[in-house]
Amino acid sequence: MKENFYYIELYEIYKSLLTEKQKEIFEMHFVLDLSLSEIAEEKGITRQNVSDTIKNAKVKLEEFELSLRVKEKNDALLKVVDNVKDEKIKDSIKEIIGR
Amino acid sequence: MKENFYYIELYEIYKSLLTEKQKEIFEMHFVLDLSLSEIAEEKGITRQNVSDTIKNAKVKLEEFELSLRVKEKNDALLKVVDNVKDEKIKDSIKEIIGR
Repeated sequence: MKENFYYIELYEIYKSLLTEKQKEIFEMHFVLDLSLSEIAEEKGITRQNVSDTIKNAKVKLEEFELSLRVKEKNDALLKVVDNVKDEKIKDSIKEIIGR
Repeated sequence: MKENFYYIELYEIYKSLLTEKQKEIFEMHFVLDLSLSEIAEEKGITRQNVSDTIKNAKVKLEEFELSLRVKEKNDALLKVVDNVKDEKIKDSIKEIIGR
């Protein structure tokens, strides 16, 4: 579950770099919480195909993070930003990070 | 020249997503400041091929920025961060953005 949350965070950052199929199936599984079998039935493809698509999407997301480290930087920024005294500046920074 | 600087900034952020060939030729042109003809001679390919590779690399960089907007967010953060009073926190934030 914690692992899933990690991939969902990466997905939120990098989804625009995935294929349409990867996005659709990733969301069916991780957002709508459908099982592999349910997705296979819904999409008229094999369970294996669904499983491979999700695995490939996760590998891609990991590769993007390894290359660009947007999540890692966001996490580091959020930690530092908590020490900013001025609430208005703090909120502005958080808003930009969360865009 | 200002336009070049824009692409160099995008390159610094997204270069890991380009192909080896795109990276090599982009750097020869924008970092080493070689002309298209000089690169063509050096690499033993046509000037047109060099030109296409640079054009494709620039399109790719623009697409990544359009999708992920890392540069846009960094620029916005740097603007806000200037108003942070605590110099130590300010430096930490700048250091993370610049990584």
